[in-house]
Amino acid sequence: MQVVPLGGLGEIGKNMTAVRGGSGIILVDAGMAFPDEEMPGIDLVLPDFTYLREHADELRGIALTHGHEDHVGALPYVLREFQVPVYATRLTLGLVRSKLQEFGIKNADLREVRAGQRTEIGDFGLEFIGVNHSIPDAVAIAIRTGAGLIVFSGDYKVDLTPIEGNPMDLARLAALGEEGVLAYFGDSTNSERPGYVPSERIVGDTFNQIFEEAEGRIIVASFASHIHRIQQVVEAAKKHDRLVGVTGRSMIRNVQIARDLGYLDLPDAMLVDQREINRVPDGDIAILTTGSQGEPMAALSRIANGTHRTIEAGPGDVVVIAAHPIPGNERGVSRTINNLMKRGAEVRYSPLEAVHVSGHAAQEEQKLVLSLLKPRFFVPVHGEFRHLVHHADTAKSLGIPEESIFILENGGRLEFNQGRARRIDNVAAGMFLVDAGAVADTPEAVMRERQQLSEEGMFIVVARINAQTGAPLGPPDVISRGFVSAQGANGLVEESIEVVNRTLQRTASQHITDWSELKNAVRRDLSGFLSQRTRKRPLILPLIVEG
Amino acid sequence: MQVVPLGGLGEIGKNMTAVRGGSGIILVDAGMAFPDEEMPGIDLVLPDFTYLREHADELRGIALTHGHEDHVGALPYVLREFQVPVYATRLTLGLVRSKLQEFGIKNADLREVRAGQRTEIGDFGLEFIGVNHSIPDAVAIAIRTGAGLIVFSGDYKVDLTPIEGNPMDLARLAALGEEGVLAYFGDSTNSERPGYVPSERIVGDTFNQIFEEAEGRIIVASFASHIHRIQQVVEAAKKHDRLVGVTGRSMIRNVQIARDLGYLDLPDAMLVDQREINRVPDGDIAILTTGSQGEPMAALSRIANGTHRTIEAGPGDVVVIAAHPIPGNERGVSRTINNLMKRGAEVRYSPLEAVHVSGHAAQEEQKLVLSLLKPRFFVPVHGEFRHLVHHADTAKSLGIPEESIFILENGGRLEFNQGRARRIDNVAAGMFLVDAGAVADTPEAVMRERQQLSEEGMFIVVARINAQTGAPLGPPDVISRGFVSAQGANGLVEESIEVVNRTLQRTASQHITDWSELKNAVRRDLSGFLSQRTRKRPLILPLIVEG
Repeated sequence: MQVVPLGGLGEIGKNMTAVRGGSGIILVDAGMAFPDEEMPGIDLVLPDFTYLREHADELRGIALTHGHEDHVGALPYVLREFQVPVYATRLTLGLVRSKLQEFGIKNADLREVRAGQRTEIGDFGLEFIGVNHSIPDAVAIAIRTGAGLIVFSGDYKVDLTPIEGNPMDLARLAALGEEGVLAYFGDSTNSERPGYVPSERIVGDTFNQIFEEAEGRIIVASFASHIHRIQQVVEAAKKHDRLVGVTGRSMIRNVQIARDLGYLDLPDAMLVDQREINRVPDGDIAILTTGSQGEPMAALSRIANGTHRTIEAGPGDVVVIAAHPIPGNERGVSRTINNLMKRGAEVRYSPLEAVHVSGHAAQEEQKLVLSLLKPRFFVPVHGEFRHLVHHADTAKSLGIPEESIFILENGGRLEFNQGRARRIDNVAAGMFLVDAGAVADTPEAVMRERQQLSEEGMFIVVARINAQTGAPLGPPDVISRGFVSAQGANGLVEESIEVVNRTLQRTASQHITDWSELKNAVRRDLSGFLSQRTRKRPLILPLIVEG
Repeated sequence: MQVVPLGGLGEIGKNMTAVRGGSGIILVDAGMAFPDEEMPGIDLVLPDFTYLREHADELRGIALTHGHEDHVGALPYVLREFQVPVYATRLTLGLVRSKLQEFGIKNADLREVRAGQRTEIGDFGLEFIGVNHSIPDAVAIAIRTGAGLIVFSGDYKVDLTPIEGNPMDLARLAALGEEGVLAYFGDSTNSERPGYVPSERIVGDTFNQIFEEAEGRIIVASFASHIHRIQQVVEAAKKHDRLVGVTGRSMIRNVQIARDLGYLDLPDAMLVDQREINRVPDGDIAILTTGSQGEPMAALSRIANGTHRTIEAGPGDVVVIAAHPIPGNERGVSRTINNLMKRGAEVRYSPLEAVHVSGHAAQEEQKLVLSLLKPRFFVPVHGEFRHLVHHADTAKSLGIPEESIFILENGGRLEFNQGRARRIDNVAAGMFLVDAGAVADTPEAVMRERQQLSEEGMFIVVARINAQTGAPLGPPDVISRGFVSAQGANGLVEESIEVVNRTLQRTASQHITDWSELKNAVRRDLSGFLSQRTRKRPLILPLIVEG
């Protein structure tokens, strides 16, 4: 039996792991990631599917731990290539169904399971175990294989006083530990954080205080999938006689799905249609919105910069940002806070106030789960290298021997055989970039080109050349784009024309009529001139027109 | 008398404020900022000089609070345009001198002052007051004007047990308060943080612990200007019998300057030349390095990714990142930590360990200074809008009336007259972008173009046209750059050629020979086609060659 993490190691995002046994492959999660600043123009990032393509006939099914994008976002792309059943809990499937619909994928084989349930896929026995997380209906997944029992925590925290549903099923984890766990793959996101993450309930207490004091509108931004937090806004609204409006595409959609499936208790009578929000007096409404990460196009950013279609915020209004910026989003969130404050709104945010708690286990919770499962082997997952290292350190502090802990990278295969584990050679596990809606072919080259274009600009040279003699027919045209128009930049274009002209006179005198040779000469000379004059290396594109 | 902040409001960075009285203008600080992700290819950002240019004949001098780039980085650019004296303390001038040398600026009129000193500039009386900060020799500046006494805190914290020099001169602030302060301009960077910032000394305690335990090399990354922190590394090295190596251009330079001027006590016998570092046994050396912000080209990043010329880090080595990521640098710092850990080095960083304390006053320190100065008017400065608002709230909590507090933006003028203050119309105060070493002329247009190039890519169309008839001479060439080469992208270029061909046939049949009309038609048709097919809007550049 082999376990092959195809994403989610050495990074936060695009979690996907293949479990391969005699009877085939089960995929645990199929997540996406968001592009970073080195991927301009990219829509989203997927795990590399090469391994799956190579073993397409072995793939038996996909089991999902919960409905977050970093665990289900790649699913439409996977299902386009591989038509296999998907196993997940009800809310997760509800979110998946809506996503597949957007992609026009019909007839996907979606199989609902619930926490506590077991099912068989080929020789594999799957068991779904309830955990707490920042989305309802999250599960850990245990897989009984010929080689032994392996457990994937998914994303989890231990919340003993959850808003809805049960606390993480520690009893079941204990029973699995007694049965004997061969390997445990545990969530490392918060492994640098000592202690326990507080219960989601403390956020509700803060909401109640805020609702108690506020006189104007209350606008709460949160992740659209954080149904428990949304429920707490609804509860505070109910208690303080406010109606609830909803804005932001994904917030509207998720509230709808969660209400339909019974995960959100928000009576019709409390719900205000987005178009009616302005008819409700400020003191009588709370508005749920997307944009807690400062995303430029999200509803809260539009409210903050005054471009939202219906909602304005101003003095007397209270805006609650009930989330913590994901690394890389700090500036966007800060911009939103600043813009809201400039409009005179009061803004309440973490960590200044307890309007957010994490959905990922801290060190003491990680110790608890490790202690219950008592795995023979431990693989920290879901995290950058630093998080995996700290999770490994926590495991060591519990007496798990260093040689039983594997810090893997994407594509790093772990083979289990007769109670032993060893690394074998890696499989391909880079990333697939989605650009303009399609999976890009040669992303690295295009990314490099885009970075060069944006940082160094470009020069285009159009030269008319006599094809027989190689002689230029008049001076070349030079056009620059994305290039600094500093003092003297116009002079720079004129000088560039001269540089190219000299090059073409020289190549003509050498009777060079090979166009690629000619282009290389132009590129070399102009690049040398520009880099010496401006310290920049713009992309140079010589175009030769036969005259 | 007017005070005109030209930078540093609504942002962290490029601090510069003009004080204009009957006898002229004094500039307090001349800082730069680093470009954000929306300014690809930009070297650095300066305050807008327009106001200074308009009043060039009134400028009498520049007074600097301390030597950080966000307070002195614009100085070479200012001095190129305005030859006025610069007043600053010894270390600040030492750093400035080295900077001006780099820029080839000679004969600048640099006038050394020291904390506690007074000097006259025209009718203005300047007084320099010692404060604590993350660089030695930092001062607040009080200016006696015809309209009253105004105080600029500069960047400060209150450290009652500083590593070197004196605690912030609270007695002098108290005396100024008794004398009567018309207006106080106070550092807001940490205004969201409750309590006090701990003394720099606690970092020394952590260093000592780390040096006590470490057996391999110790590599400490810190801001190159944080001489007190560097001194603490030296002290720990001395105590644990380690020599000190220095790497990173600015670290080498600043250590040199601080030693020359007597701010850093690092005996020759302890200092190892960079080229000799590898001759010292691992357990006998500590290495000071730049790169604490994860800057890709800095020494620590090179050590982390294995491209440093001389220094390698591996198992047994301890790397201390004695700094906190500035917002926007989180991912770079995280990448450095991950890379170092992948090499097997142990990495110690904040907030997991007390290897960093802030150099900016938290709320209780801000209260202390406000209480001592008892200003009639208060202007929070050095901060994003959110920080200014929180600093204003702190002032209100001390009983300063709301109408005596002014939250300004860059260019917002405050006029003082007979003990009263009022806002008057704003002056120009955008930003000047430095690109390829020169101040850019029309930065916004170029920035937009660069963003479009990097996110949407570009299509270049070369068409040969009969100038008389407007008829195309053969099919056009289409070249794409930075554009996704997804499935079918080649087909896309071929289809683009057809689209352009149809456009040119049509314009020819309409006898269009006006080239700009022709280009517009090509641009419109191709843009429509591409946006419909790919959801992208690449930059389209039609080039027409007369045939």
